[in-house]
Amino acid sequence: MNLEIRLIPEKEFRRVRETPMDVYDRLALIADMCRANALATVKRAGSGHLGSTFSSLDIVTFLYHAALNIAKRGIDHPDRDIYFSSKGHDVPGHYAVLFSLGILPKDRFVNLRRVGGTHGHPDISVPGIEANSGSLGMGISKAKGIALAKQMKGNKGRVFVMTGDGELQEGQIWESLQTTAHQKVNNIHVLVDFNKIQTDKQVDQVIALTHIEKKFEVFGWHVARCDGHDFARLDETLNRLSQVTDKPKVLIADTIKGKGISFMEGPTALKDGKGLYGWHAGAPDDDAFEAGYREIIERTNNRLKDAGLAPLMTELMETREKHRVRLKDTAEKVVTAYGEALTELGATRKDLVVLDADLAADCGLRPFEKAFPDRFIENGIAEQDMVSTAGGLALQGLLPIVNSFGVFLASRANEQIYNNATEHAKIIYVCHYAGLIPAGPGKSHQSLRDISLFGALPECIIIEPGNGLETKQALEWCVDEAQTSCMIRLVISPSPRTITLPEGYRFSWGQGTVLEDGQDAVLVAYGPVMLHEALTASEMLRDRGFSLKVINLPWLNRVDMPWLEETVGPSKVIFVLDDHSIYGGLGDSLLNACMASDILRNKRVIKFAIADDPACGTPPEVLRYHKVDGESLVARIMTVMGERHG
Amino acid sequence: MNLEIRLIPEKEFRRVRETPMDVYDRLALIADMCRANALATVKRAGSGHLGSTFSSLDIVTFLYHAALNIAKRGIDHPDRDIYFSSKGHDVPGHYAVLFSLGILPKDRFVNLRRVGGTHGHPDISVPGIEANSGSLGMGISKAKGIALAKQMKGNKGRVFVMTGDGELQEGQIWESLQTTAHQKVNNIHVLVDFNKIQTDKQVDQVIALTHIEKKFEVFGWHVARCDGHDFARLDETLNRLSQVTDKPKVLIADTIKGKGISFMEGPTALKDGKGLYGWHAGAPDDDAFEAGYREIIERTNNRLKDAGLAPLMTELMETREKHRVRLKDTAEKVVTAYGEALTELGATRKDLVVLDADLAADCGLRPFEKAFPDRFIENGIAEQDMVSTAGGLALQGLLPIVNSFGVFLASRANEQIYNNATEHAKIIYVCHYAGLIPAGPGKSHQSLRDISLFGALPECIIIEPGNGLETKQALEWCVDEAQTSCMIRLVISPSPRTITLPEGYRFSWGQGTVLEDGQDAVLVAYGPVMLHEALTASEMLRDRGFSLKVINLPWLNRVDMPWLEETVGPSKVIFVLDDHSIYGGLGDSLLNACMASDILRNKRVIKFAIADDPACGTPPEVLRYHKVDGESLVARIMTVMGERHG
Repeated sequence: MNLEIRLIPEKEFRRVRETPMDVYDRLALIADMCRANALATVKRAGSGHLGSTFSSLDIVTFLYHAALNIAKRGIDHPDRDIYFSSKGHDVPGHYAVLFSLGILPKDRFVNLRRVGGTHGHPDISVPGIEANSGSLGMGISKAKGIALAKQMKGNKGRVFVMTGDGELQEGQIWESLQTTAHQKVNNIHVLVDFNKIQTDKQVDQVIALTHIEKKFEVFGWHVARCDGHDFARLDETLNRLSQVTDKPKVLIADTIKGKGISFMEGPTALKDGKGLYGWHAGAPDDDAFEAGYREIIERTNNRLKDAGLAPLMTELMETREKHRVRLKDTAEKVVTAYGEALTELGATRKDLVVLDADLAADCGLRPFEKAFPDRFIENGIAEQDMVSTAGGLALQGLLPIVNSFGVFLASRANEQIYNNATEHAKIIYVCHYAGLIPAGPGKSHQSLRDISLFGALPECIIIEPGNGLETKQALEWCVDEAQTSCMIRLVISPSPRTITLPEGYRFSWGQGTVLEDGQDAVLVAYGPVMLHEALTASEMLRDRGFSLKVINLPWLNRVDMPWLEETVGPSKVIFVLDDHSIYGGLGDSLLNACMASDILRNKRVIKFAIADDPACGTPPEVLRYHKVDGESLVARIMTVMGERHG
Repeated sequence: MNLEIRLIPEKEFRRVRETPMDVYDRLALIADMCRANALATVKRAGSGHLGSTFSSLDIVTFLYHAALNIAKRGIDHPDRDIYFSSKGHDVPGHYAVLFSLGILPKDRFVNLRRVGGTHGHPDISVPGIEANSGSLGMGISKAKGIALAKQMKGNKGRVFVMTGDGELQEGQIWESLQTTAHQKVNNIHVLVDFNKIQTDKQVDQVIALTHIEKKFEVFGWHVARCDGHDFARLDETLNRLSQVTDKPKVLIADTIKGKGISFMEGPTALKDGKGLYGWHAGAPDDDAFEAGYREIIERTNNRLKDAGLAPLMTELMETREKHRVRLKDTAEKVVTAYGEALTELGATRKDLVVLDADLAADCGLRPFEKAFPDRFIENGIAEQDMVSTAGGLALQGLLPIVNSFGVFLASRANEQIYNNATEHAKIIYVCHYAGLIPAGPGKSHQSLRDISLFGALPECIIIEPGNGLETKQALEWCVDEAQTSCMIRLVISPSPRTITLPEGYRFSWGQGTVLEDGQDAVLVAYGPVMLHEALTASEMLRDRGFSLKVINLPWLNRVDMPWLEETVGPSKVIFVLDDHSIYGGLGDSLLNACMASDILRNKRVIKFAIADDPACGTPPEVLRYHKVDGESLVARIMTVMGERHG
């Protein structure tokens, strides 16, 4: 059976806009049409954040269709009102609204999270997007810069920025609230999408935002609050706010996560999920998609009928086989092995404390959390605080294991990690979602700088395991054997193939494993994603009569020199494939190692890595974009070897 | 004429402790004796933060001499009360108190900011110090970790942490206030040293902390407030706070910056400085030292007399020539050239906006601030907010120039810098206080990781100029010619020699300058500090008949290959001297460049850099410690060349 994914075309929005009806009825209608389109694009992309897309969508619809001057002035006018989302997770809804106004062209809109389409989080290369976001807490600061620039340049227009509620746990929010009020940058409207659920738990359970209105007030802001799904109240409240000129302004909008699809709505969904909210990220399965889509379309058609209008005309975006089996349902995930190993270790190592910054499920921490609730610290979206808390625990002789996505942990909390490092108390940092893949969420989530951000800490050992077994052994090594702090980077997506390690494999300091023997050149890689590409390249090269030795080296900044010297063998060229920026990864580590070795000094080291911003798209298209897929590697290797032979 | 720097020995503290007298009178006496010792050690070291040392010293004295159980339990007891300073700038006073109790031995105490003595900011290698600090905002988080560990391990003892007031501008503070309250980590006492002056301006002028008590309250903390120089009130208030068990606790202590020396006290000093406070950092000159020391000693002796005790016996710490001329009074400073160039550019480039995070004087920004107040943004100690604000300005077509110390800017605001980089709007980041020297403030201030923290941003060009002229030209290049974002790193200390560039020197993309010709080997370096050591090495080697070519290469991650190939010439060895970690600096850049060049591939690249945590001490002893002083370089070069010749 086939699944149809359909689009409400722009002309349908025009029809609704041009029909006289009650303004708030029209907004509700448009918002639901945008909901349907957002849902369809997320389903097509296979991922996206529906929960907060739906909670904020009425507000975004209101802004573009009733408040901002963009429709009149145009998106490039210097006096335009500016809106962007600080959290950025809700961008599928934002795109849907931009599409509804003709600002975002169809061919980009329907290709959510694809190269050439739109990004998984806001990116200014997409028409209508005013600022990049997706990592939390930066939006008010950036809005302040935009408002200050308007002031300095004498440009008109108001500045609106949407934040989440969990996002208010980030320290930068409070920095920006203080400075904005002090600097009297009053032309800012902050809209808090207060849906009360962050990732998959209630904000109140994670880190409560008690006295949210008073907090903004005492930081010098003018505060208003209303139902974020009630267009009349939004209209009235935002009008009132725009009259306030002696203070920056915040609207706390009470919203419902997943608003608009009954079973995705906060209270119902929490109940169904036994306290966990299941619709934060990821696309719904085929049945849920069809049920949800039907619910929105039926409501929309009823509204159209009430307004005396014909039902919606939709067009086909894509047809696909229903209930197809996806890689992620069957493949190995290193993060699962990590979670299991962590829980096993927790049973014997009573000094082990696990810290999380609101990504417990993604980071495989739920088993540990359940088994050892007293040694699990859920710290909310406050990475800096989490890392320094770990520092305090380590000073008192406990062993903290600190988890978040690498792009946040290594970067946001970098100075705190450095401060801890100068105390030389052992801490294990786990940078999840390491590397290029999955590439759908885009640059704010892909972690390609984490090795470089830990690299200059003299003692810190950096490891990326290639399969579940190696993950378990690597964690055990870090916990039981390492004398210093360690950073483990872990791929978050299902492994494209399970990397096979030799019978009786033992994780050993500075050493890797030959996965595929070969004489003509050596390719060193690590992690399941890039090892798969390396092995693919080797298989393709073998068909051409070129024999490539593939080595898995999980030690990214340490190497056992005798092992390396022996393993590289006579090959004159060492290719190194990094799932990281071209700067500072394993390639540089081996370049230095070779320079320091009398045996290896005259080898040629060729680095394959990510030389520019990571692209957003499906794994194959993004690997290809950066020329690190198997086929591209073959071409690059042959070019180099050809040069040498020529 | 000679200057005497004297010490009040530990036995004098014992005498006071053992004499029966009013407890608060005794505390006042001890605090002043600690003041005298702190002043003397700062004078001897040549630098230190007296303003906040003096504002917090009564509180620290009270804690150790009347509140904490450390004197009884001992500094290593698991049930001890724990105190540390989050700001850490006030550590000379903390050391003085630890010395007064015999916890910190004399030979370490008198050697403030020296290798083998004590660190310029708190370091746990110093007896009595419980946590490393010096970079702001981390203390409450770390105290939370310590308190949680006490709880998990079943250890007794209270946890106290001191913060500054300006420090409350850091976002991490508010993260930690939210999480601590939510997690009910109630065994924490935060002490705010509310002296109302940060660096050299009033907090109210920088970023006001309006409603400070209400802010803590609304974040779920129990708040008390009292005069931080009134021992009776401190006693009563802290006693009361320790009874509170349902919330974490904060004492806002109203203090006077520079308390205890009349002309250093906030109100007077601000008046004398025409609104700028002159005693935040640095040692007083000889006359101010003598006047201040005399004032404290006279007051102390009067107090002793009132208590029926003999006057103080002090012992000589050091005698030195009075009014000696110091390097810093005469030498070139690249930061001065930077400030001048910035102001010149500001006159023609109306799009240029300068941002500062409360280090305007140190970063040479005062001339610009004065000339263009409307394009100068004083953002307080809120680096993340500053960087994202710059992002907003850049999105609107302005050119932000973002300033702070490199160790803070590159690290604390790393994710914000990355987010801006993904928007590709040009921003110039200036990492001041780059490199190893001055080494007195210690690891929290020495910036040896900044190149690595910017290195993986694909477009960002990293530059460090070697003298004033090159600084001016580098800034002009970044402003007028660069197409992408740039990072300029600048040494903050006076140049040990003025680097001479050729007549008509023109700063050119990817190219450096031969400062000293030579045939036997090549040494590439940058920045005034390391170029001086490189030239010193070259001079010493010349005497031994070894001719070393010294090249200044200000481009740290870009190089003009034909220029490099030609300039290196026939030498088989290229030494690279980094004022940075061994990881990710110019050494790695040139290693990659050589590997990519058919001409240079077989050269040997030897990196000299900082391989471990930066030491704290005087410039000569720290350069020697890390083996990057001229003499050590000679030895290291000869070892390599000997190997080659052998």
